[in-house]
Amino acid sequence: MRKLVSLALAAALTVTTLRAQGIEHGVMPAPRSIVLAPGGVRVDSGLTVALTGFRDARLERATIRMIERFEARAAQPMSRSLGATSGARLVIDVKAAGFAVPDLREDESYTIDVDATRATLTANTVVGAMRGMETLLQLQAYDRTGGFLPAARISDAPRFPWRGVNIDVARHFHPVAAIKRTLDGMAAVKLNVLHWHLSDDQGFRADSRTFPRLTGLGSDSLFYTQDEMRDVVAYAADRGIRVVPEFDVPGHTTAWMVGYPELASAPGPYQIERRWGVFHPTMDPTRESTYQFLDRFIAEMVTIFPDRYWHIGGDEVDPTQWKASTSIQEWMTRNGVKDLHALQTHFNKRLFTMLDKHQREPVGWDEILQPDLPRNAVIQSWRGMNGLTQAAKQGRPAILSAPFYLDHIKTSAEMYREEIIPAGLTDAEAALVLGGEACMWAEYVTSETLDSRLWPRLAAVAERFWSPAHVTDVGDMYRRLDLVSRRLEEAGTLHASHTGRMLRRIAGSSDAATLETFLDYARPRGFAGRGTNQLSPLTRLIDAALPDPLGGWRMQLLAQRAVSGDTAAARMLRRDFARMATFETALHEMQPRVPLARDGFELSGALGTLARIGIEALDARRATTTPPAARSARSDSLLKSIEGKTFGLLRPVGAEAVRILLTN
Amino acid sequence: MRKLVSLALAAALTVTTLRAQGIEHGVMPAPRSIVLAPGGVRVDSGLTVALTGFRDARLERATIRMIERFEARAAQPMSRSLGATSGARLVIDVKAAGFAVPDLREDESYTIDVDATRATLTANTVVGAMRGMETLLQLQAYDRTGGFLPAARISDAPRFPWRGVNIDVARHFHPVAAIKRTLDGMAAVKLNVLHWHLSDDQGFRADSRTFPRLTGLGSDSLFYTQDEMRDVVAYAADRGIRVVPEFDVPGHTTAWMVGYPELASAPGPYQIERRWGVFHPTMDPTRESTYQFLDRFIAEMVTIFPDRYWHIGGDEVDPTQWKASTSIQEWMTRNGVKDLHALQTHFNKRLFTMLDKHQREPVGWDEILQPDLPRNAVIQSWRGMNGLTQAAKQGRPAILSAPFYLDHIKTSAEMYREEIIPAGLTDAEAALVLGGEACMWAEYVTSETLDSRLWPRLAAVAERFWSPAHVTDVGDMYRRLDLVSRRLEEAGTLHASHTGRMLRRIAGSSDAATLETFLDYARPRGFAGRGTNQLSPLTRLIDAALPDPLGGWRMQLLAQRAVSGDTAAARMLRRDFARMATFETALHEMQPRVPLARDGFELSGALGTLARIGIEALDARRATTTPPAARSARSDSLLKSIEGKTFGLLRPVGAEAVRILLTN
Repeated sequence: MRKLVSLALAAALTVTTLRAQGIEHGVMPAPRSIVLAPGGVRVDSGLTVALTGFRDARLERATIRMIERFEARAAQPMSRSLGATSGARLVIDVKAAGFAVPDLREDESYTIDVDATRATLTANTVVGAMRGMETLLQLQAYDRTGGFLPAARISDAPRFPWRGVNIDVARHFHPVAAIKRTLDGMAAVKLNVLHWHLSDDQGFRADSRTFPRLTGLGSDSLFYTQDEMRDVVAYAADRGIRVVPEFDVPGHTTAWMVGYPELASAPGPYQIERRWGVFHPTMDPTRESTYQFLDRFIAEMVTIFPDRYWHIGGDEVDPTQWKASTSIQEWMTRNGVKDLHALQTHFNKRLFTMLDKHQREPVGWDEILQPDLPRNAVIQSWRGMNGLTQAAKQGRPAILSAPFYLDHIKTSAEMYREEIIPAGLTDAEAALVLGGEACMWAEYVTSETLDSRLWPRLAAVAERFWSPAHVTDVGDMYRRLDLVSRRLEEAGTLHASHTGRMLRRIAGSSDAATLETFLDYARPRGFAGRGTNQLSPLTRLIDAALPDPLGGWRMQLLAQRAVSGDTAAARMLRRDFARMATFETALHEMQPRVPLARDGFELSGALGTLARIGIEALDARRATTTPPAARSARSDSLLKSIEGKTFGLLRPVGAEAVRILLTN
Repeated sequence: MRKLVSLALAAALTVTTLRAQGIEHGVMPAPRSIVLAPGGVRVDSGLTVALTGFRDARLERATIRMIERFEARAAQPMSRSLGATSGARLVIDVKAAGFAVPDLREDESYTIDVDATRATLTANTVVGAMRGMETLLQLQAYDRTGGFLPAARISDAPRFPWRGVNIDVARHFHPVAAIKRTLDGMAAVKLNVLHWHLSDDQGFRADSRTFPRLTGLGSDSLFYTQDEMRDVVAYAADRGIRVVPEFDVPGHTTAWMVGYPELASAPGPYQIERRWGVFHPTMDPTRESTYQFLDRFIAEMVTIFPDRYWHIGGDEVDPTQWKASTSIQEWMTRNGVKDLHALQTHFNKRLFTMLDKHQREPVGWDEILQPDLPRNAVIQSWRGMNGLTQAAKQGRPAILSAPFYLDHIKTSAEMYREEIIPAGLTDAEAALVLGGEACMWAEYVTSETLDSRLWPRLAAVAERFWSPAHVTDVGDMYRRLDLVSRRLEEAGTLHASHTGRMLRRIAGSSDAATLETFLDYARPRGFAGRGTNQLSPLTRLIDAALPDPLGGWRMQLLAQRAVSGDTAAARMLRRDFARMATFETALHEMQPRVPLARDGFELSGALGTLARIGIEALDARRATTTPPAARSARSDSLLKSIEGKTFGLLRPVGAEAVRILLTN
C-alpha cells in the first residue's frame, strides 16, 4: 500500500531520473535556488573533507557529525582529518565565526557547488555552513555502487530569521533526551529557535536555586536541573539553534504559587493544577514583592539562557483574582490604572524594565498588545492573523503561530498552505514579521507521543518558514516529506515507529497488525474533547494514530489519476476501499481480546461507508451508462455525513479521495 | 506470518482459556509456584490499592509506577491514594523496609493471592513487593470488558540472589537514557544487578574530580558526570537493582593512560585504543604511586557507588609490558615474585586490602583465580564452567557468565538451555554459586542497536537466573517471551521497532518492507569477524537484524506439526518457503537503489536453497511413493552446507525446520 509513493521516491533518487527530470530533489526546506545536473561526487570511504577558511571547534564538531551521518549511510568509515588540502572531495569554506551565541541576526546563507570532482560549500558563518551541511546530507543520492552528491548549484538563505517551535513541557514533562532528539530534528530542517515553555499552571520545570520550592513543590519532581538546561542550551547552540525560555506571567502561574503563594492575587494555599484551561491564580501586579521575586528569578535564569530574547507569556490572564481583590482595586484607583488590561500593561512595563536591566528583549503572546506597551516587545500572534497585522502596523516585530498549532492536528498540507505575511502590509511593515513558530502544547501529548505529533509535519512548517513564498506545491512537499521523515529517524526521532510501538502494547501482535492498517485510514481528532486531565493515561488508539497518515495524500493522488482515466490507479484505490471495508468486522472480532479496539468502532463503520461509495463511484466510471441521479445524490449526502466529521476520537482518512471521485 | 504464534498467545489470555488450561500464564520469569483459577479482580478505573503494612517513599513510588502501568493499559485513570483501607481491591502488605541500599542478601520473596474480590500481595521487604508487582502486571489478562487479574495463588522467590547483566559502555558509549530504559526492562524481568563496565582500552566513562584527565583525555567527551552516575544508582535502587561498577585493572587500561601515562608499565604517550582485542598497556604493579592513585580513585568512587561489591576486572592481562620492563623484572626478583600470574595476584592482594579499607568486597573475572588469592573475592566465570567449579571447590563465591554472552548472538533457546550449577558440586559448594550475569560487550553494539541485542533474549536468561531449575520448557518460554517482549516496550525499550527503524534509513519504504521480511529469516553472525573498530559505523543489515527472530522457533513448531500430519501447519510452512525463495531476485532488483542490500546477497541464495529442499520435503510427504534415496541424500548434503553456516555477515533462519522435515 505504501508502494506507489515510495517507488516513485526511490526512482527519483537514481542518476537516471536526476538527469531526466533535472529539478527533482529531496531537499526540505527547498533552497532559494537549486539546479541539478548529471554526474557528481562519490560519498564513500574515499570521501575527504577540508575546512579551508575560518574554523573553530563548533564547525569541526558539526563537520564530524555530518561525516558520521555519511558514514552511517554508507556503512563505511571515512576520514575525519578535516585538513585544508585542496585535493579534498568536499571543501567547506567559511568566512567567519558569526555570533558567539546563536542570534536572530545570524547570517545563515550558504552556497553549494558540486561538479564532477568536488563539492564546495561556502558560507559567511559557521551556522550558515551547518545549514548547508544539512542540505548536502539531503542531497545525497544512491546508485548501484553507493552514495553520491549529484552535481548541483545551490544558493540559499532563509526567508525569515525566526523559525521556531514552542515545546510545552509544563502540561506533560519531556525529558532531556526527548528535547535533544527534537533539536536534532529541528537542525535537520533548518529550524533555529527552541521556544521552551517551562512553566504553566500544571508544572514548573526549571530548577531555581534562589527559589527551590518552584520545582520542589510545583513539579511533581519532573523538572530540569540547571546542568541539564545548560546542557540543552549548549547542545542547541552547537546546532545553531537559539533557546528562548518562556516563564508565562502573570497568568498560567498556579505552579509558581504552590511553593510561593505570596505571588498570587488571592491567599493560598495552591495545588498543582491537573485540569486544562484558564485558571484564577494570577500574580499580584500591585505588590513590590512580586517584582523583587521576578527580578531575582530572572537574574538567576539569564545565567542559564544566553539568548537576547525572553518570553514573558502574557496570554489568557484570568482577571477573577484581580477583580475580587480589594487591595488591587484600591491600588488601581490610587494609581489611575483604568482597567484590567491597563493593569497587565503596567505589569508588563515593570517586567520590560527589569528585562532591559538584564539585557533581554521581551517576547509575548498577542494579548500583551495594548496601546501603552513599549515598542520593543516581539508579539507572538496565536489568536489569528490579527495580532500580527496590528503589531506590524504599530511598528512592532512579530512572529506568527496561529496556523501552526501542531496540537490542533491539522494535516501537513493544511499548515503548508498558510502564508505568513498578512495581506495589506507595506514592505516596511512586512519586514517586521520575523518569522513563525509552530506550537506543540502538551495537554494531549506525552513524551511517548511527542515525536509522532512533531514529525514529519514540522518539516512542512519549517519549509514555510525558510523557503521562498512561491514554494507552495503540496504534491512536491509530500514527496519530499516522505524522504525527510526517514532522514529524521537518523537524528533519533521516534515518530515512524510510534504507531507500531503503541499498538503492540494495546493489542497482541496479529491484532496490532490489523490496528496498524486501520490507523492508515484514521487520524486523531483535534485539540480538546477528550475530557482528560494531567493524570490521565494517553494510551488509546487516538494516541497511537498519526496526525497525517501519508496514505491520505496518496489516495487523493490516486483518485485524481483515476478520474483522468488511469485504470492502474483506480485498481490501487479499489484495494484501499476493500481494506477500509474490512475494519468493522475485524474490530468487533478483536474486541474480546483487545478492549481498547472499541475506540475504533465508530470510525470503522464510517470507513465502510466511504469504501462503499468509493467502489460505486469507480464502478460507475467503468459502466457505459450514467448512474441514476438519485444514487449520486445519496452518495453525496452519505459522504457529507462523513467528511470533516469526527467519530469517537478519530477522523477518517480517504474522504477527500472519495470526494474527488464523486465530483469529477 | 506472525499470525500463528500471536493468535495462540492472545487466546491464552482470555478467561475461557485460563479456565480450560489452568496452568498457562504469561509470567516471566516463571514463579516457583503458580496456580490459576476462574474469576478474579477487575483492573479498571475502580481499582483501589492499599498499603496495609510497612510503607516508605520507595514502596509508594513503586506502587504508583505500577498503577500508572495499569492505567496506561486500561487507558483509564485510577486512584492513587494508596490508603490502608481494608476494602481495597489490591492490598499490598509489606513487613519491613529491607536493606537501605539494595543488597545481595535482600529477601526478594513474595506471595500473591487473588480471589473473586481481592488481590493480596505480601512480602517481607519492599524489594520483594516490587518483584510481586511485576508479577501482577504480567498476570493481567483481558476479556471483552477490559483487564482483570485472574484468580491465582503464587508463591515465589528467586533461585539465585545475583541476577545481573554487564553493560559495556567503554567500547561504545550508551547515554543515561539507554541505561535507564535498560534498568526498567531489568526490573520487569526481576534482574537485580547492573554490572557497569565503565572503563576499558577504548574509553573511560566515569568522571573523576580527583583525576579529571581520565575522562578529559580518555573518553572522546563521552562519559557520565558524577550527577548522572548518582542518578542512575538512585534510579536502580528505586527498582531494587544493585549497581556494581567495574573499573577493569591492571589490563584493559589504555584509556586511563592517555591522561595518566605514569600508571603504565612502559613509557607513554598513549592514545585511546580504537581496535578490539587485548593490548599491551598494563598498570605497573611494582610502583607505590599506582596504588596511591587507585586508592584515591576508589575513595572518590565509593561515594557514588554504594554497593558492597566492586568489580576489579582482572581479565586478559597482557604481560608484554611487564616482561619488557627491567625495573619490573628486578622488582619481582627482589621480592621473590616467581611469575607474572603471581605478580597479578600481588597486585590483586594490594587492591583487595584497599577495597577492604573502603568497605568493598572484590569481584573479578576468572583469571584472578590464582592459588594465593584471598578467599572473599567473587569469581565471575566467563571462559567456561571451569572457573565456577574451581572457585566453588575452593570455597569461593562465584557467578556464571560464560554461556550468557549476548554479543555471541546465540538464540534465547540456546542460552535458556544452559544450567548454572556445574555437575559434581556438593550442596555446600553449589551454595557458593550466587547466580549469573549476562554480558553485553559493546564492540559491535551502539546505543542504537543496544536494545535489540538485549531484548527479549535477556528475559529468557533472567528466567534461568530466577526460576527453579526444572523450568526448562523451551516452547513455553517462547510463548511467554513473545508476551514479555511487548511488555518490555511499556518500559520504553526500543527492541521491537529496531529493525524497521534501521531499514527505513537503509532503504526507501517499500524496499524497507522487503528487507524487513528478509530479516525474518536472517540472524547476525556472532561476535567478531567484521573487521571494524570503534570508529566504524554499525549500520548494515547485520545491525538491523535481530539475534533471534521469533519466526525461527515458529517454523520449528510448524515443522514438528507438519511431520505429525498437520496439513494446516504444512501449508503455513510452505508459505514461509515461498517467501524465502523470493529474496534472491528481490535483493538484486533492489541493489541500484539500495547499495547496502548487497549484504543480503549471499544469504538470499542460501534461503532459496533451503526453501527448495523444504518444499521438496513437504511434497514428498504428500506423495504416495517414497522419494528416491539419491534425492534425500542430495537434500541432506545441501542442508548441511547451510545449517550452522554464515553467509557474509548473516546466518539463515529456518534450517532447523527443514532439518526436522528431513529427519522425521
